[in-house]
Amino acid sequence: MYAYQAPLRDMQFILHTIAGLEEIASLPNCEDVSAELVSAVLEEAGKFAAGVLAPLNQSGDRQGCRLEQGVVHTPEGWQAAYDQFRDAGWVGLALPQEYGGQGLPKLVSTPVWEMWFSTNMAFAMLPQLNVSQAEALQIAASLEQKQTWLTKVVSGEWASTMNLTEPQAGSDLAATRTRAVPEADGTYKLFGQKIFISYGEHELTPNIVHLVLARLPDAPAGVKGLSLFIVPKYLLDAEGKPSTRNDVRCIAIEHKMGIHGSPTCTLSYGDEGGAIGYLVGEANRGLATMFIMMNEARFGVGVQGVGLAERAYQYALNYARTRVQGRDAITGESGQPILCHPDVQRAILSMRARVMAMRSLLYTAAGWFDLAHHHPDPVIADQYRRYVDLLMPVAKGWCTEVGNEVCDDAIQVFGGMGFVEETGIAQYFRDARIITIYEGTTGIQANDLIGRKILREQGATLYELIAEMQQTEPALAHSAALTQLALPFKTLLTDLKTASDWIVNQDQAQQAQVLAAATPFLYLLGTVCGAWQLARLALAAATKQADSSFDPAYCQSLIELTQFYFHSFGVQASAYAATVRQAGESLIAFDFAQA
Amino acid sequence: MYAYQAPLRDMQFILHTIAGLEEIASLPNCEDVSAELVSAVLEEAGKFAAGVLAPLNQSGDRQGCRLEQGVVHTPEGWQAAYDQFRDAGWVGLALPQEYGGQGLPKLVSTPVWEMWFSTNMAFAMLPQLNVSQAEALQIAASLEQKQTWLTKVVSGEWASTMNLTEPQAGSDLAATRTRAVPEADGTYKLFGQKIFISYGEHELTPNIVHLVLARLPDAPAGVKGLSLFIVPKYLLDAEGKPSTRNDVRCIAIEHKMGIHGSPTCTLSYGDEGGAIGYLVGEANRGLATMFIMMNEARFGVGVQGVGLAERAYQYALNYARTRVQGRDAITGESGQPILCHPDVQRAILSMRARVMAMRSLLYTAAGWFDLAHHHPDPVIADQYRRYVDLLMPVAKGWCTEVGNEVCDDAIQVFGGMGFVEETGIAQYFRDARIITIYEGTTGIQANDLIGRKILREQGATLYELIAEMQQTEPALAHSAALTQLALPFKTLLTDLKTASDWIVNQDQAQQAQVLAAATPFLYLLGTVCGAWQLARLALAAATKQADSSFDPAYCQSLIELTQFYFHSFGVQASAYAATVRQAGESLIAFDFAQA
Repeated sequence: MYAYQAPLRDMQFILHTIAGLEEIASLPNCEDVSAELVSAVLEEAGKFAAGVLAPLNQSGDRQGCRLEQGVVHTPEGWQAAYDQFRDAGWVGLALPQEYGGQGLPKLVSTPVWEMWFSTNMAFAMLPQLNVSQAEALQIAASLEQKQTWLTKVVSGEWASTMNLTEPQAGSDLAATRTRAVPEADGTYKLFGQKIFISYGEHELTPNIVHLVLARLPDAPAGVKGLSLFIVPKYLLDAEGKPSTRNDVRCIAIEHKMGIHGSPTCTLSYGDEGGAIGYLVGEANRGLATMFIMMNEARFGVGVQGVGLAERAYQYALNYARTRVQGRDAITGESGQPILCHPDVQRAILSMRARVMAMRSLLYTAAGWFDLAHHHPDPVIADQYRRYVDLLMPVAKGWCTEVGNEVCDDAIQVFGGMGFVEETGIAQYFRDARIITIYEGTTGIQANDLIGRKILREQGATLYELIAEMQQTEPALAHSAALTQLALPFKTLLTDLKTASDWIVNQDQAQQAQVLAAATPFLYLLGTVCGAWQLARLALAAATKQADSSFDPAYCQSLIELTQFYFHSFGVQASAYAATVRQAGESLIAFDFAQA
Repeated sequence: MYAYQAPLRDMQFILHTIAGLEEIASLPNCEDVSAELVSAVLEEAGKFAAGVLAPLNQSGDRQGCRLEQGVVHTPEGWQAAYDQFRDAGWVGLALPQEYGGQGLPKLVSTPVWEMWFSTNMAFAMLPQLNVSQAEALQIAASLEQKQTWLTKVVSGEWASTMNLTEPQAGSDLAATRTRAVPEADGTYKLFGQKIFISYGEHELTPNIVHLVLARLPDAPAGVKGLSLFIVPKYLLDAEGKPSTRNDVRCIAIEHKMGIHGSPTCTLSYGDEGGAIGYLVGEANRGLATMFIMMNEARFGVGVQGVGLAERAYQYALNYARTRVQGRDAITGESGQPILCHPDVQRAILSMRARVMAMRSLLYTAAGWFDLAHHHPDPVIADQYRRYVDLLMPVAKGWCTEVGNEVCDDAIQVFGGMGFVEETGIAQYFRDARIITIYEGTTGIQANDLIGRKILREQGATLYELIAEMQQTEPALAHSAALTQLALPFKTLLTDLKTASDWIVNQDQAQQAQVLAAATPFLYLLGTVCGAWQLARLALAAATKQADSSFDPAYCQSLIELTQFYFHSFGVQASAYAATVRQAGESLIAFDFAQA
């Protein structure tokens, strides 16, 4: 196993160039954000990730979780690590100060979360749930609920869960059956079964705040009849301390391919008279609130993509630098590490290029998120909010698919040693396999992108974004180091524009063809956004190289990396665009009885 | 878990159209091959696969193998299944009759092996080793060795292994250290450690025939100093029966991501005075013989790709037909299975298109193999031998990569149920992960393709194959049903030709760039060969549809499937071609100290 090295240089370079840390630090409520503070936070997080979380990752995978007599046991070391994590204030890093958080911008917390996911995703899913739930509660909960629950969630004293899925209601929440019956005292009693609940039960915190979608007796059918409830594991006494056990129990945990350290629970509500719950927000409006939590979680899962990919890349690079095998194809020298082989170099660069593309996109999106929240000009704030909304399915869908590809490539660099479990890289591959699934599969993201984010507004924000991307082209053309990328970049944008036009201009009769194109279109948009962000990064590198304000060898490597991305991945955009336009036709014609 | 359905219709259609079963049945030594015989063999195999092998696949994965006091225990049911398999004569199906095999063409045995791999790859690896070893022994072993060992290998009475890898010698066999010391009686004593030996030890057969690469005391350095030895687990008595235990022991088995039912052994030779071995063929010429075994195994691993992909496809299709979720996007109807969603249809068709492309390519290559062996015209036989040699790395490299992609897509169709182990699809994904690695990684295949198969002869066979592919273009142009594919097909061939020219025409100074392009070139050639074979299949389907000699709905579905392949996968060829020509440049310029 290779020690984790927090990629601080890459992170800092992106933060201070394309992701706009300086601009965000100048916004209202962000005045405390200084370069020094950010450096200190990232360095501390890097130490914590490498020193506390990374050492537990493989042992957590091997031990997994156990359910015994209703009690879920997490792996050894989880409790001590969580206590340290909570006490250090990491849970509330980017949560509001008024509820006890540190109020840092999302741009600063995103690289920190990347480090948690790089070193121990199964563990980090626990506090990630607190962050997602806090986003929802701070918007929808009552003042009293905030005081009672939100502050404990922000501090990490109590843990959080997110209860949507039921056996018959996965992607289709309209099929939700869990019932909530109003009581005379204003509370509710819940009855039903929820499945696939991450950290649905454990002993790591003295209480767990379940956020549960359920249906009131008089609720309309479908998603417009879902209400949201806080259902604590322990009911609170008069002082607000956990006391009586509520009627919610873990009746099974899943045996999964990966994330063994994270218990995936089946929760049964109301087997003994009803689980007491508290309505959050308005009745029948629960889905909108749950989607705040979901959207936050989706972004986080995208960050899992880059986090896993970064660590897998580090593994592969270390192995390629130390494993001696074969002769250097060029010099004929023997006794060389396999990094001398051009095909291994290709694999390593492919990994690094995609890691940097994902990271650049996610950090830039995190910056947009901050601009949307804090920019004093409502027009500008609204523009960034629309960008974030548009690209959320890309941040989730594309970064998780690419994250899986990078983990796959890492195994390949290890050869046979990648397939055996002892080296640790196999775990990254297995763990990564969940991220294209949970919080909405890639197909669900793609449908969201096409349906809600593009067609609902005839592509308005998409075209706005394309226009913004176009501004990078002349910058490339005028850069001596990057001028040869101007034309390929223009081609990418033309491919994207053509495919977007096709999507937007189909009439209702072509709806199936459009939906058949959703996933290829998501890949197209992700690939082009990745190229755009790397182009911006390379431009910044060229500038800093020219004025010697950053290590010139590093800057040069970013320029080469960007070219490599264009030649290895950017070139796929036209294929995706062609698939978008063409593949639906034969799909519609195909007789699935013959499948 | 869904029952396995042998895809007999697809298999038969390919055999009787593009793969040329009739032509092969007319060759010398193939006279016994009739359509009826082939049908009977495939049907019996399908029953055996579904009835005997499939039910053990998941339990074998769960139980795995155990090493206890030097004895390897395989999963429950393995012994009974192997006894049946051997007694039914499946081991020697395509091995020569003179050694006790049934002598059927490779074209007939290939679909049979596909079924074994579809239903239980971990099990089928055992007899697969017999077949690979038999190919080597029948060419290189002495008459006496053939009588003693080969006949038992062909019958399956004894098992086989293939011993190449050592800790310091993986892809680089020049680093092999195992020593063989000549004895006065003409035998040898072997000393050394071999790792990653599939079925290196077990109790399923009364003896195991290890085929071992080792170095004689006076051997030259490198691969030209490797000799090949038969080292049996038990030495034979005067009647040729296994008696004394030889000095080879299993000292460890690997803990792997998949193929848990197949023990991957570390074998130690000579800890107690030397393992007795018998030289096969000439001294220092062992690698060439081992490569006969290796090449046979590589083709078999390609067949594993389509076998796993077919079963994963069946899983996904069955799940998509039965899992109810969401509304039909077009009709708005609820209560529909998820196969109504265009994105799920896209996933299903993507899987089926690639399965059929791989199957068409592998069966066609199997037919070429038979033509190479049996065609009376030595010029024609030689042409097909060269085709087989050229495409062996594609059959192995491309079909295993695509096989993994299809298994990955199947998980995605299952959503969260794909990540939990109970549904069984996760096992296919885990098992498949080894096939791009063993018998030479995809990178090794790609280097073999570029170096030995193309550059060594300035692309002669490659250009010959491209010229043959070009003959399919006018056929497409003249087919009413397929005329719209003529131009895309021409574009594919142009992309392939341009990339091939680039590869062949680089001078020595560009060697690193060429090797950096090896894997993208392998993908390019695989993608184009897949398109070519599907185009041929669609042409055959159009003909049979026109003359009503086969189910017209099925024929139509093959035409649509081919179009879908062109639009979803064929379009990627130009991206691969661009990567071939461009990506090496930035790779060469990249400073890996900055990685």
